[in-house]
Amino acid sequence: MSDAVIRHLESQYEAILERLKALLRLPSVSTDPACSEGMAAARDFLMDRLRALGLQDVQLLDGGGQPAIYAAWQGAPGRPTILLYGHYDVQPADPLELWHSPPFEPTIRDGRLYARGASDVKGSTLVAVETVGAFLAVEGGCPVNVKVFLEGEEEVGSPSLPAIIETYRDLLAADAMLSADGGRASTTSPSVSVGCRGIAALQFSLRTAAKDAHSGRVGGAVRNALHEMAKLIASLHDEQGRILVEGFLDGAMEVTQDIRAESAALPFDEADWYAALGAAPYGDPDYTLRERITVRPTIEVNGMWGGYTGAGGKTVLPCEAHAKLTMRLVPGQDPAAAQAALRRHLEAHCPPGVAPDFQYQPGGTRAFTLGPHHPLLLAAERVTEWVHGQRPVRTRAGGTVPITTLFQESLGIDSLMFGLAMPDEDAHAPNEFFRLSSLAEGLRSWPMLLSELGTLAPGDFPKR
Amino acid sequence: MSDAVIRHLESQYEAILERLKALLRLPSVSTDPACSEGMAAARDFLMDRLRALGLQDVQLLDGGGQPAIYAAWQGAPGRPTILLYGHYDVQPADPLELWHSPPFEPTIRDGRLYARGASDVKGSTLVAVETVGAFLAVEGGCPVNVKVFLEGEEEVGSPSLPAIIETYRDLLAADAMLSADGGRASTTSPSVSVGCRGIAALQFSLRTAAKDAHSGRVGGAVRNALHEMAKLIASLHDEQGRILVEGFLDGAMEVTQDIRAESAALPFDEADWYAALGAAPYGDPDYTLRERITVRPTIEVNGMWGGYTGAGGKTVLPCEAHAKLTMRLVPGQDPAAAQAALRRHLEAHCPPGVAPDFQYQPGGTRAFTLGPHHPLLLAAERVTEWVHGQRPVRTRAGGTVPITTLFQESLGIDSLMFGLAMPDEDAHAPNEFFRLSSLAEGLRSWPMLLSELGTLAPGDFPKR
Repeated sequence: MSDAVIRHLESQYEAILERLKALLRLPSVSTDPACSEGMAAARDFLMDRLRALGLQDVQLLDGGGQPAIYAAWQGAPGRPTILLYGHYDVQPADPLELWHSPPFEPTIRDGRLYARGASDVKGSTLVAVETVGAFLAVEGGCPVNVKVFLEGEEEVGSPSLPAIIETYRDLLAADAMLSADGGRASTTSPSVSVGCRGIAALQFSLRTAAKDAHSGRVGGAVRNALHEMAKLIASLHDEQGRILVEGFLDGAMEVTQDIRAESAALPFDEADWYAALGAAPYGDPDYTLRERITVRPTIEVNGMWGGYTGAGGKTVLPCEAHAKLTMRLVPGQDPAAAQAALRRHLEAHCPPGVAPDFQYQPGGTRAFTLGPHHPLLLAAERVTEWVHGQRPVRTRAGGTVPITTLFQESLGIDSLMFGLAMPDEDAHAPNEFFRLSSLAEGLRSWPMLLSELGTLAPGDFPKR
Repeated sequence: MSDAVIRHLESQYEAILERLKALLRLPSVSTDPACSEGMAAARDFLMDRLRALGLQDVQLLDGGGQPAIYAAWQGAPGRPTILLYGHYDVQPADPLELWHSPPFEPTIRDGRLYARGASDVKGSTLVAVETVGAFLAVEGGCPVNVKVFLEGEEEVGSPSLPAIIETYRDLLAADAMLSADGGRASTTSPSVSVGCRGIAALQFSLRTAAKDAHSGRVGGAVRNALHEMAKLIASLHDEQGRILVEGFLDGAMEVTQDIRAESAALPFDEADWYAALGAAPYGDPDYTLRERITVRPTIEVNGMWGGYTGAGGKTVLPCEAHAKLTMRLVPGQDPAAAQAALRRHLEAHCPPGVAPDFQYQPGGTRAFTLGPHHPLLLAAERVTEWVHGQRPVRTRAGGTVPITTLFQESLGIDSLMFGLAMPDEDAHAPNEFFRLSSLAEGLRSWPMLLSELGTLAPGDFPKR
């Protein structure tokens, strides 16, 4: 049923690639207020494209932050309604000096398209949108009813997404959600994702004196904020990386024999993985590497700073230190409880007269899990087997797709992550890239998946 | 003998204050390459002034870095030759947002002159220079032969000073050195300094992977450079601030009963001291506060940074972390040995696969001590008693005046620190200020001291 659509998309490959490059040129860094023009330009670009492809009701959904983009085609009565999720925002591009080509000038080298956001997740988002347009162009309609929802705050933890969902609850009603973000666990073995870790964040500062002072005149008798920050951060893990924060693991899913088996099913070369990162093996020795990065929680410092950081030296005793942390959560962990446990730990480990000042605590996201017989999962496994000629492995992602949990909790629907990004594409890092082969594959697998879902009835999808 | 000179300087007070303001407007931040114009402007200003005051042989002494300024007056045969030391460079002004008035726009509030470098040490430097000029103007000659030496790299550890001294050894030959930098230990009790701590510096980086990575995709299985940096810094001190670096204290002077008594002689309100800093009591409990900040060594992190430090969040697992450290040294410690001990500690405490990359290791400076019967000291004590009506206390400074040690080791002469800065003037910090009362005092005490030294013969000064 999707063959003609796939042929049409193949004929449009070059045009779609050019369109993706144009989208990647727009610096839509949601966390950086200086990029508001880039955010607006990315929205305009995608809304124009959705209209051109024949989608209707194209509009912005406002929740007080970066608005989401919405568009719909609902001409398949009796068929399921699928919410297609993507996001148009990207991570900051710094450190800029480490990029081999500018982050917002898409550049193809060796079959790879280098640009900030190419892998995470403008590439897969455009594939989803173009697939719907191809059905409309070739067949005059889609196998399922479609609601496109493209978020603008995924890279900052989706702070206004709950408000958007609350405001537009009726507009967003659907039977299931299909995400262009997340999904693939391996560059060599086909896989389908059945879950991802959650996230919670915390930024805090320490102050040890009213002002910076001369390190010679007061050194030895005044607490150095950087020393105190170092002690606090050092107290979070033991030498092997086990988390030492009391209460943080409360409720966390046990790694059962079934989960161990599922985790071990993916062919995975640990030495290759570490070699690609240029890193040495590390982590909680009670768990395998795959388990550590998918079904065990983490606490990571994403940024830490204080004192003089410019050229040369400055003999200052710094009175302030700062740190940004994020936690990855597994099923069973409550983000607010995890954050509270971390806050209690930091407070308890501060020396007398010093207290953490917590500054940035966006709402977190629970981990997500898809049931083992879910129709979304079974359909994705069939399509992946057709495309790759082998049965995919079920995997869990170490990252977080907040939308999956939010849509489950708020709209009662389940999500499948069917993104095309591969785990080695340096998302969130310099020299992010997207494989052109993934672009071509997506233009076949996405039409197949929409066709498969079109064989189901709305009642086939479990509701929460 | 100096009365007429003092009256002359009093009559010139307003003009000298305006001259000081003009000097403070020149941003001579030696550590910052962007301030090279400010450095040059400060040099030009001072050289013009030295010429106008009647000093001779005004020139720059080049040692490969920021040149020093030299000027001389040698018309007092049979009298001692005194090297007058000051420095024209200043610390960086950041964090700029904490200044109540711009750091390079001198502003008087409540009898205090606020500007970067006002206290450390353009104020005292100008007093020394103007004093010589006043003798020449009023009496046609100075009580001693004078060689003015104004350094441009004091705030960055005097990296090229040894080369300057080596090159200009004959030009700089003198019987003793009188420093406008350093000296006063109290805002209420008169004191004369008999020593200061030395310094050594170290900057290093850690790398835990070849590149930054997505904290969700690799978190839990790759070392976070910020965690490793925190562990290293936390390993330097125990909970009470005692240094844990093996070998660092080798050779360090014992705090004898005599030193304890000398240290305790200065009236000193610990509660006031901490209140002024807005800090809580802290430090090695085996020593008094005064001892901790003057006769015990320290290791302080002056700056520490890594990962994402911008607005909002970034879910990155940072592969690089950086720290700048300085050590304060007491008599008996060798800077190179102290630095080597710290390097060994950092290397030994790094986890497998991680090694510190040492980047910035300027030559250090030994601590300095003046003998208890030194003619410089006795003269300064007489002058201070005349000015204040009470016998000054002998004190040691916690900071470092590299020149004192270098001139002792290289030219065999001793130094007296006779600076006018007070310890609460926020040197190296935002809102640095200099008391106008200190300016007025210096324009009396400096002429008195030069007159006192003029009663001595060159042979009265011990040579090393």
